[in-house]
Amino acid sequence: MNAEIISVGTELLLGGTVNTDTTLIARELSRLGINLLFTGTVGDNPERLEFTISQALSRSDLVITTGGLGPTGDDLTKEIIAKAAGKKLVFHEESFRRIEEFMGGREMPASERKQAYLPEGCTALKNNVGTAPGCAFRTDAGKIVMMFPGPPSELVPMLHDYGVPYLLGLENAVIVSENIHVFGIGESKVAEMISDLTEGANPTAATYAKRCEMFVRVTAKASTQKQAEQMCRPLVEKIKERLGDAVYSTQQESLEELVVAQLAARGLKLATAESCTGGLLAKRITDIPGSSDVFEMGAVTYANRIKTKVLGVPEEMLAEYGAVSEPVARAMAEGIRREAGSDLGIGITGIAGPGGGTPEKPVGLIYIALCDGEKTYVRCLPGGTRPRGRDYQRIYASSSALDMVRRWLSGLPVVP
Amino acid sequence: MNAEIISVGTELLLGGTVNTDTTLIARELSRLGINLLFTGTVGDNPERLEFTISQALSRSDLVITTGGLGPTGDDLTKEIIAKAAGKKLVFHEESFRRIEEFMGGREMPASERKQAYLPEGCTALKNNVGTAPGCAFRTDAGKIVMMFPGPPSELVPMLHDYGVPYLLGLENAVIVSENIHVFGIGESKVAEMISDLTEGANPTAATYAKRCEMFVRVTAKASTQKQAEQMCRPLVEKIKERLGDAVYSTQQESLEELVVAQLAARGLKLATAESCTGGLLAKRITDIPGSSDVFEMGAVTYANRIKTKVLGVPEEMLAEYGAVSEPVARAMAEGIRREAGSDLGIGITGIAGPGGGTPEKPVGLIYIALCDGEKTYVRCLPGGTRPRGRDYQRIYASSSALDMVRRWLSGLPVVP
Repeated sequence: MNAEIISVGTELLLGGTVNTDTTLIARELSRLGINLLFTGTVGDNPERLEFTISQALSRSDLVITTGGLGPTGDDLTKEIIAKAAGKKLVFHEESFRRIEEFMGGREMPASERKQAYLPEGCTALKNNVGTAPGCAFRTDAGKIVMMFPGPPSELVPMLHDYGVPYLLGLENAVIVSENIHVFGIGESKVAEMISDLTEGANPTAATYAKRCEMFVRVTAKASTQKQAEQMCRPLVEKIKERLGDAVYSTQQESLEELVVAQLAARGLKLATAESCTGGLLAKRITDIPGSSDVFEMGAVTYANRIKTKVLGVPEEMLAEYGAVSEPVARAMAEGIRREAGSDLGIGITGIAGPGGGTPEKPVGLIYIALCDGEKTYVRCLPGGTRPRGRDYQRIYASSSALDMVRRWLSGLPVVP
Repeated sequence: MNAEIISVGTELLLGGTVNTDTTLIARELSRLGINLLFTGTVGDNPERLEFTISQALSRSDLVITTGGLGPTGDDLTKEIIAKAAGKKLVFHEESFRRIEEFMGGREMPASERKQAYLPEGCTALKNNVGTAPGCAFRTDAGKIVMMFPGPPSELVPMLHDYGVPYLLGLENAVIVSENIHVFGIGESKVAEMISDLTEGANPTAATYAKRCEMFVRVTAKASTQKQAEQMCRPLVEKIKERLGDAVYSTQQESLEELVVAQLAARGLKLATAESCTGGLLAKRITDIPGSSDVFEMGAVTYANRIKTKVLGVPEEMLAEYGAVSEPVARAMAEGIRREAGSDLGIGITGIAGPGGGTPEKPVGLIYIALCDGEKTYVRCLPGGTRPRGRDYQRIYASSSALDMVRRWLSGLPVVP
């Protein structure tokens, strides 16, 4: 099946909004084994919209639109598709009731009512977070048309909960994906390591870069959930084996999610003392709902004076080795653990840049220490080569710290 | 002039890469007063690419492509455009030397050489960060064609340094933009407040939403920089007057940048004590290079025990009012200021959600206190209505805290 995506909305042509909808849908189509051949964007202009829709219906088997389903006069997608496909728009009782419900008793302007008109005989795609429903139908010429609202907050759940199942229903299939999350090996290196495992058509395996991380997605299509799962499993195991302990999870989406869950399961508490990462590590841990069970205290000790006062880092140590040094990272981890009364303490000190580097201590040099009360482990990120910017350094350092906790909790060598 | 953007690359159709190139170019075209009518993406397929290019050349005055300029056999954009426009590709000596230089003495594979062939008579657009040059030319039919490389790190500087000047050169014009950054009034409200000021064609004014903020961009086109600046100025002043003290800057891009610069200029230091924002405020401040001059200490005091131990918040106060309360926010701000020995102290406590809300203290209820040693100001974000997610609550609270500092520094009422 060949597909085409059309995004509708003048705002996309003005450059104020990045079109993430297309990427999200493209990703799902790729998982489903549907070939996406064209994508396009057109403004809220009836003639150009009609031209684009008609061209898509003539050359593609599946036409997906985003945007233009709202209540205003500019919102024309449904009207123009219905015209191009020779369908009438009819009042859809259930969608009307959902809009009423969503508006929570506020008076419904006539314009809102327009959203409850859908092409005759279509499958309505429910909108659980907004007013405009989506819809899907087959044209008389046998083409599939699907319409989604433009705001990603509405499109994403509708696509996952109703859009993908609709497409799978067309061929009585289900798909199952499993993500293998990796930290410490880059995407291109992983792609090389598993190149022979990424050639299959079903299940497929593909690599994806994330900021400072990557993951491999294994996807299988079958007629039952169980069968698809069984098809994924051996490939997932092979990839995990190949990548070894750089694989941190096939369940949790991020290192912080994994670490918070593992600490909670073991009833352990963690405290953080940050210099160059400036609170980013604490922020990432507290991004996770429920992190208060495992995290009671973080300190951002930017000044040397504060490292001494709050964490007890000796002034002489700071004078002798400098703030960016292994002994200071160690003393910070030990100090915050003592101060917070936690099981684990982390200390991070380094030069995030862009300024502050010297030949001996270049931008990117970062020491990360983990103290468990018996032993203190220190990892050094040497920096220097190809500085990748302050943001990158800070994210990479905070991820490395989380990875050290993950390794400690899993009984792996803490410093890889 | 009517424009069309075509992105070339199968990777964009697989959903692994968000197409930010199109957005960036769209934004520049909008600033230049060029109407963008269509954008599209097509894979590395000769027939579909040729169809798409020919259609664009037939209906648009300006056709801009991104991607497909690299050294591999898949990179076909130049070849197909040259064919469609009836131009030969010729060896471009200067581009060849730049590629050689960029490769720094490594041996140049034959494939790299391909990148130095450009349509005859074109203007080469230099690539200062990669190998593939871009180019621009006018077809015999009078259409303008511009080609840019796909990677944003190469496209962005080429677009700004050579692409925009090429377009301006076509009409002997320069453009100047000024951004008016606003916190505390939403984009749709601002659009309403200045609707009469956004109707002009030159200078233009347009509103843009940012996460938890917005800005208004004023753009003028003229034959000299000075003239364009003079055209912007009265409109900028009118908008600033209309929006009052919600405008925080026309120079700095973010509240944290502004606050760090203003504190540094006055020689003042700030310390932060965060509960629900979990280090995000400290992280945002330390995002700014040079923030160590104004920020020495932050504390993330998630547990009540730590609020008492580190900040001296009385146990009885926590018991009587609860951790999420005005007195506790106040005591946190005063405590961190004392502990850090800083000029200003900030305390934030609240319920970021998704769990933990009650009828009396709903999700989103957040208290933010600013202590200057003489007085402590407290702002309450009431929460409750339409919870917008943990991330949003945390960003909004940290922005509100920065805004309180900004207001204090500017002699405005600290709590608006």
